[in-house]
Amino acid sequence: MADQNRSRRGLMLVLSSPSGAGKTTIARELLKSDSNLVSSVSATTRPPRPGEIEGVDYYFVTVPHFERMTSANEFLEHARVFDNFYGTPRVHVENQLNMGRDVLFDIDWQGTQQLRENARDDLVSIFILPPSLAELERRLRGRAQDPEDIVRKRMARASDEMSHWPEYDYIVVNHDLANSISEVRTILAAERLKRARQIGLGDFVKSMRGA
Amino acid sequence: MADQNRSRRGLMLVLSSPSGAGKTTIARELLKSDSNLVSSVSATTRPPRPGEIEGVDYYFVTVPHFERMTSANEFLEHARVFDNFYGTPRVHVENQLNMGRDVLFDIDWQGTQQLRENARDDLVSIFILPPSLAELERRLRGRAQDPEDIVRKRMARASDEMSHWPEYDYIVVNHDLANSISEVRTILAAERLKRARQIGLGDFVKSMRGA
Repeated sequence: MADQNRSRRGLMLVLSSPSGAGKTTIARELLKSDSNLVSSVSATTRPPRPGEIEGVDYYFVTVPHFERMTSANEFLEHARVFDNFYGTPRVHVENQLNMGRDVLFDIDWQGTQQLRENARDDLVSIFILPPSLAELERRLRGRAQDPEDIVRKRMARASDEMSHWPEYDYIVVNHDLANSISEVRTILAAERLKRARQIGLGDFVKSMRGA
Repeated sequence: MADQNRSRRGLMLVLSSPSGAGKTTIARELLKSDSNLVSSVSATTRPPRPGEIEGVDYYFVTVPHFERMTSANEFLEHARVFDNFYGTPRVHVENQLNMGRDVLFDIDWQGTQQLRENARDDLVSIFILPPSLAELERRLRGRAQDPEDIVRKRMARASDEMSHWPEYDYIVVNHDLANSISEVRTILAAERLKRARQIGLGDFVKSMRGA
């Protein structure tokens, strides 16, 4: 077997962080610059907003459809947010992984916990931390002139999210956006070199040992 | 606790490969370019050769001294090669790791197996493969006009070493030296971002949650 017959199983890259730590910007930059990385697409029961595209932004489904998928264990993770359901269909992710593509998840600690149970070996999880409390507060305030109790609620949610950092494989402290993007890229590049993700190595080595 | 109080525990980076796959060149380049990476230094009972420096090339010890260290479990790994003993003293490596330095090991599968037992969480292991059988043979022959049976012995040893690739965390196929060096650097950079190696994160997050 020649080296060209080797390939790679994709991985699931999870980025979590408190709101305001820069996760969404990092995710967008990664997707733009890495043609082998695709965004996971969720199914949702909420109606499409203007401009949203089926299969790109979401898979739009009815509540009974979503419930059927849930009972058939077709989601890698799912959640209810107010009156709407959201979930990651397993089959689409599995297809991408089999084709050697990596799938990016921008999800919170609860989604990550479900994913961890359903996809142990494929998962690479990164938690992004803000550089300081002052900076986090500045970012959460900076968005608008929001009333104090709204800001306080955001801070409480951020604090709650941050309490889950020990569940993640890697920690990136976002002092500087460009540097953080580069660190996430480095993690992705290294994880692609993991033995367990490389397919055909056994035959490749055999071809070199069989002389 | 400020972010500046965070630090990192070093890791043990193991490079193994069959002779002729480029491991030694890769190791030398890494050590030259990364001031945080130091080479592990072995103790040995063989006499110093001209130019070899105590504590840099080896720790030169007597046979009784080596045997005392062995029975006191002071080696991370040790082996007998012909009439000489070689071993990695645990205390020096542990010092480096505690100071946040990474330690590079250029050892074979047998040394790696011992290291794995003695240093589980600190170990990052990379196996370097040649790009093809033809190339491996070319490299093993290329050194000199050696008799056929010597070359064949080298090939057999290379084959034996290669059979242990499944025991390693990462696989780098050395098509191109510069690219392989860059891949090993990437693995090292990513492993430094592992949560478990970062010290003081708990207090750092606490400082941001304690508002």
